[in-house]
Amino acid sequence: MSTTLRLSHRAEWAEGQPISELMSRALAEPDLISLAAGFVDEHTLPVDPTREALASMFADGGGLKAALQYGTTSGYPALREAILSRFVQTNACQRDLSIDQVVVTAGSNQLLHLVSESLLDPGDIVLCSAPTYFVYLGTLGNAGALSYGVAVDAHGMVPEALEDSLTRLQRAGDLPRVKAIYLVPYSDNPCGITMPLERCARIVDIAKRWSLERQIHVIADEAYREMRYEGEDVPSVLTVDDEGDTVIVAGTFSKSFSPGIRVGWGILPQHLIGPVCNQKGNIDFGSPNFSQHLMASVMQLGLYEPHLERVRAGYRRKLQAMLAAVDHELAPIGGVRWITPTGGLYVWLQLTDDLPAGPDGPLFNAAIAEGVLYVPGQYCYPTLGEPVRHNTVRLSFGVQTPEKIRQGVAALARSMRHVLG
Amino acid sequence: MSTTLRLSHRAEWAEGQPISELMSRALAEPDLISLAAGFVDEHTLPVDPTREALASMFADGGGLKAALQYGTTSGYPALREAILSRFVQTNACQRDLSIDQVVVTAGSNQLLHLVSESLLDPGDIVLCSAPTYFVYLGTLGNAGALSYGVAVDAHGMVPEALEDSLTRLQRAGDLPRVKAIYLVPYSDNPCGITMPLERCARIVDIAKRWSLERQIHVIADEAYREMRYEGEDVPSVLTVDDEGDTVIVAGTFSKSFSPGIRVGWGILPQHLIGPVCNQKGNIDFGSPNFSQHLMASVMQLGLYEPHLERVRAGYRRKLQAMLAAVDHELAPIGGVRWITPTGGLYVWLQLTDDLPAGPDGPLFNAAIAEGVLYVPGQYCYPTLGEPVRHNTVRLSFGVQTPEKIRQGVAALARSMRHVLG
Repeated sequence: MSTTLRLSHRAEWAEGQPISELMSRALAEPDLISLAAGFVDEHTLPVDPTREALASMFADGGGLKAALQYGTTSGYPALREAILSRFVQTNACQRDLSIDQVVVTAGSNQLLHLVSESLLDPGDIVLCSAPTYFVYLGTLGNAGALSYGVAVDAHGMVPEALEDSLTRLQRAGDLPRVKAIYLVPYSDNPCGITMPLERCARIVDIAKRWSLERQIHVIADEAYREMRYEGEDVPSVLTVDDEGDTVIVAGTFSKSFSPGIRVGWGILPQHLIGPVCNQKGNIDFGSPNFSQHLMASVMQLGLYEPHLERVRAGYRRKLQAMLAAVDHELAPIGGVRWITPTGGLYVWLQLTDDLPAGPDGPLFNAAIAEGVLYVPGQYCYPTLGEPVRHNTVRLSFGVQTPEKIRQGVAALARSMRHVLG
Repeated sequence: MSTTLRLSHRAEWAEGQPISELMSRALAEPDLISLAAGFVDEHTLPVDPTREALASMFADGGGLKAALQYGTTSGYPALREAILSRFVQTNACQRDLSIDQVVVTAGSNQLLHLVSESLLDPGDIVLCSAPTYFVYLGTLGNAGALSYGVAVDAHGMVPEALEDSLTRLQRAGDLPRVKAIYLVPYSDNPCGITMPLERCARIVDIAKRWSLERQIHVIADEAYREMRYEGEDVPSVLTVDDEGDTVIVAGTFSKSFSPGIRVGWGILPQHLIGPVCNQKGNIDFGSPNFSQHLMASVMQLGLYEPHLERVRAGYRRKLQAMLAAVDHELAPIGGVRWITPTGGLYVWLQLTDDLPAGPDGPLFNAAIAEGVLYVPGQYCYPTLGEPVRHNTVRLSFGVQTPEKIRQGVAALARSMRHVLG
């Protein structure tokens, strides 16, 4: 009967996600030091804050029952209130925002999915940094949409390159298909770059000016905003959207508190509240209420900020360990360049042209033979626009201990020398 | 700028979900007795089992940390093992099933969504009972797919009517677009019918015989299977799929344990594991791990079955209260017919033709004036096939106390007499 099986176009578009292959490779060789996965540090998982928040929920019988019952599609009001008030405070935001604009999702990822479903038809285009967050590229591909890569520098997406891209798309008659510009403004995945507000403001201005035939939204994926280990915070790009109709913010507690509780959110322009909630209603009716009450309790009891400080302290040490190892092990090889991040979970390497780092290349297999797994940087490149760079590597310092990070980077150095002969 | 806003086709297809209007109506008039929502009984929410399961998780530090970390896309293996072994036992299932075929989702609803995404392109057709679960009709509409209604009798979807529908579709050249038959075999929403296994087996046989150009799957939504208050359990329709390539099972702990924890699952034919997990990977990466570990702990500690008995005892009293009230209040009006369910959360009324029950009709408003809200049955009818019956009503006994159920049904009787003059 399988001869007559016909899957949807979406199922075809979703095939061959590279990362699942990487994961099975890592699982098959458990001695491998994985610098690949963006998992979070086990030592900073919030055991005590979770215990305390749950105890408080159980002390309030009515509240606990509410947590075990269905919630609403857009999420638990007390949590949305806490998210919004923290957002307004952190950004000294002058804009009028209402909790109607806040929707709770299964991580920021689901928010990105819901926004894609609301805005994109097959063949539509989203402009992204090249490189960018590869899981989002999968979300776009799944909807039959196209990703178009725009050049980046040390401050993120380059406004002039964005204008050039839009000009090219306009000349080709494709401007009506451009629906959004996707940014990861804070300690981005995969480069660790934080975009200055002035840079973001120029991109919002470009989005508004180029909304000639169709509105172009700016999707600001702030997943790594709290994961800052050095330097000052930067206000959200939402604060420079004076009309409040362009910027969509995605946030999450997955990295900063717990990915297992898995609560993310969006802050939406008014005109997208209905469409995004309709999509969510048709997918899951609303995220698990229990997780939402738990996160609300964590925030109401003041447990979030102190935990965040512990999280930052933990990752700060790991980032330092990785930068020291990269400096010590990789710099001597010559031609290896990297951006020094002040946050996030990743260090992005650019190698010389004679060191292709792809999954079928010599370096990838040599690295596995030496005992380390990385994410080939080529997965992080959009389909159109800027060319894919095959001599790039994403290293994550999220999961491993400082000692394992050093060992992993040393193994990578050995594999590079091996390939270079 | 909103003049240039262009949403996706999906966003247009998702508009105007009738139930959200009903909900706002209910919220706006808090004194209304709602016999509309399918929420679960607050008194049977599992406070003590949840406390006990969490205590056990906290006693095992490593287990708790695993619950707070990312999981895998298909779900926590120990939970999938528990779900599968309970399924095999309950059904005395002889088929070889592996936990690879079990995927954990945000309620059974998300499983239905993922299967739709994997199988359906816009314009594709799913055959459903008329009436059927209206939220699934929204899921289909959201994907641009069409629902085609097949007649039901007291044992559910009528096999002869299904064959007739397929014949009509074939003559119209639409058979290649038919991708699935959707069944709610246990205490269905909205009628409360449980389908005998022999009836389900005939439908599986029809699906296999009619898989001429494209495979036609049978989606068995077993959301209400555990909500049986009288009579014997019936084995799952999966047990009669000898080749194991036709039946997809959707299940959930939402009704039987807690909708707030929100853990559902699917049991998939081998060829759908990859496509469904690809979709889930692109949407949310996997359901919240904490909820999954909690449910696994509930099952491992043996807390699920005793809780289920309490749940059943609670709803048994409510079903009896509603049936007694319907008998006492509505039977005298004449011409009101209903099916006596042995489980579920609903009683389905069929009124005489002079009592249209739609949201714009006289009965709906009279009922609200008398203080009761119901779901107009017309929402439960597929787009094509069997005609919509406007003189139908879905009553839920899930949320209200027996006393409120009696008051609500009495108010409905008054409004009927009022409309009939």
